[in-house]
Amino acid sequence: MTKVAVIGSNMVDLIAYTNRMPKEGETLEAPSFQMGCGGKGANQAVACAKLGTEVIMVSKVGDDLFADNTITNFEQHGIDTAFVSKISGVSSGVAPIFVNPSSQNSILIIKGANEYLKPDDIDKASVKLKDADLIVLQLEIPLDTVYHAIEFANKHDIQVLLNPAPAVPGLDIEYACRCDYFVPNETELEILVNKPVNTIDEIREAAKVLLDKGLQNVIVTMGARGSLWLSKTGDERLIEPVPVKAIDTSGAGDAFIGCFSHFLVQTGNTEKALKYASAYAAISVTGKGTQSSYPNVAEFNEFAATYVTN
Amino acid sequence: MTKVAVIGSNMVDLIAYTNRMPKEGETLEAPSFQMGCGGKGANQAVACAKLGTEVIMVSKVGDDLFADNTITNFEQHGIDTAFVSKISGVSSGVAPIFVNPSSQNSILIIKGANEYLKPDDIDKASVKLKDADLIVLQLEIPLDTVYHAIEFANKHDIQVLLNPAPAVPGLDIEYACRCDYFVPNETELEILVNKPVNTIDEIREAAKVLLDKGLQNVIVTMGARGSLWLSKTGDERLIEPVPVKAIDTSGAGDAFIGCFSHFLVQTGNTEKALKYASAYAAISVTGKGTQSSYPNVAEFNEFAATYVTN
Repeated sequence: MTKVAVIGSNMVDLIAYTNRMPKEGETLEAPSFQMGCGGKGANQAVACAKLGTEVIMVSKVGDDLFADNTITNFEQHGIDTAFVSKISGVSSGVAPIFVNPSSQNSILIIKGANEYLKPDDIDKASVKLKDADLIVLQLEIPLDTVYHAIEFANKHDIQVLLNPAPAVPGLDIEYACRCDYFVPNETELEILVNKPVNTIDEIREAAKVLLDKGLQNVIVTMGARGSLWLSKTGDERLIEPVPVKAIDTSGAGDAFIGCFSHFLVQTGNTEKALKYASAYAAISVTGKGTQSSYPNVAEFNEFAATYVTN
Repeated sequence: MTKVAVIGSNMVDLIAYTNRMPKEGETLEAPSFQMGCGGKGANQAVACAKLGTEVIMVSKVGDDLFADNTITNFEQHGIDTAFVSKISGVSSGVAPIFVNPSSQNSILIIKGANEYLKPDDIDKASVKLKDADLIVLQLEIPLDTVYHAIEFANKHDIQVLLNPAPAVPGLDIEYACRCDYFVPNETELEILVNKPVNTIDEIREAAKVLLDKGLQNVIVTMGARGSLWLSKTGDERLIEPVPVKAIDTSGAGDAFIGCFSHFLVQTGNTEKALKYASAYAAISVTGKGTQSSYPNVAEFNEFAATYVTN
């Protein structure tokens, strides 16, 4: 059976809907509040598991109210949590999010327990990780841990996907070269390459800079413009977007990566996986919330039948 | 045995320590996060219970992760939670709080379940409430419920204290007249009377406006300047502040009211209760957090022995 291992973050989204931000020293009433499970790693794991792939999560939670809730959420999605461990004296990762009346988000990220996911935690999980077909990584955990995970994947001949999000200035490009798939969005690409990314031509040029440095496959997610895949073999595919009316784009990038991972390990066909990932991310933006907007396999099949052609 | 009933709010404080507030559309990392039990009603109940008075809480929680935590917190302080009930489809009250590096707070209040504490909930709790010696009220629940509680207290000949916080523009002063104690801070007094409150003389004048309208006892809490008590009989006492080094003033007003309520029902002596309340609030500002900075009876006795003279 194919397996995806996600080594990464989990966060609790604390979403306040407010008319404006309070000023310093001010107390302001806001109309409503919602809590949700989030974090890039967790989102990607949940999207992948919802589509039916066996997922192993390697992650850290704090010793607070949120910890058991996060673990229960993973379990409800059938995700293996044997290596989701608690760390005492630290809060779980949380993201206080403020949504204004025009649906613009301001986000605070407090990594909390995620900062304590160490290289050693990968070694401890190696008994399960070495059977994975794909290891999926993001940058909400310490860079050392990400690098160690890439080394682990290389050593055990496991495919590895790195989503360089959020953009981290000190990312060592040598490690990106050792990944099979490198999946930034436009902003992350711009920061990495320090070139404009306004047009698709500019994005192509920026991605080529990475390929010239030795990366294998660069997939740039471009929101409503679809995604662009360039490989070191010279292959290039522009995956057209699926036309939908966006309501809430939060977590769409993670939906894309979770779905791509699922179809990559199930079919081995990168292009096909990208088309499905585009469709999956498209559905996710038509619903409110992050994980709650990810369709399950039945919902997705119905939608994909219309939009994904081989 | 003497009993205090608090009919009021509970909130979960979600405290993010951040270097600055994120802008619209921005994601910003912040160093740390803490969760705590708060809400004016809950804080006052906890302060009073910590000093040893039997406390009955009438309050509403949502159907989320925070609900059981809030109820457990009350129970750990020995507070009667028979009338703390859950309401489905609504979040618990929450207060996302942002503390900047110079310790200034910006606070969002989402009342959530607190908005659903209705006059009917007081009637349902009447079997316990009618034995109370004092009913304590604030304004984080609907005004109709506050008014109904005042009517209930009058009808059953129970003393009633109203803390008009936060300042609510539509407060009906007729109901304030039917309370034994009316306890605003300077800002709330200013908004109520629409007069300046910069000096103690100005505060005295503003308080007299309320007495002229028929209020019985007005106690103005003035932070580091102590508190001022004026009664309709013409009595007046300025309670000197207890000199301490303030670290975190959050919840100090609630500490004052909880402690005042305890000593009022235990001794029947308003002035003595005010002196103790001043000392209790003073200790609370020397520690971080809200309820966590409230001393218990042993800690308080040691401190009060030095500062409170009869």
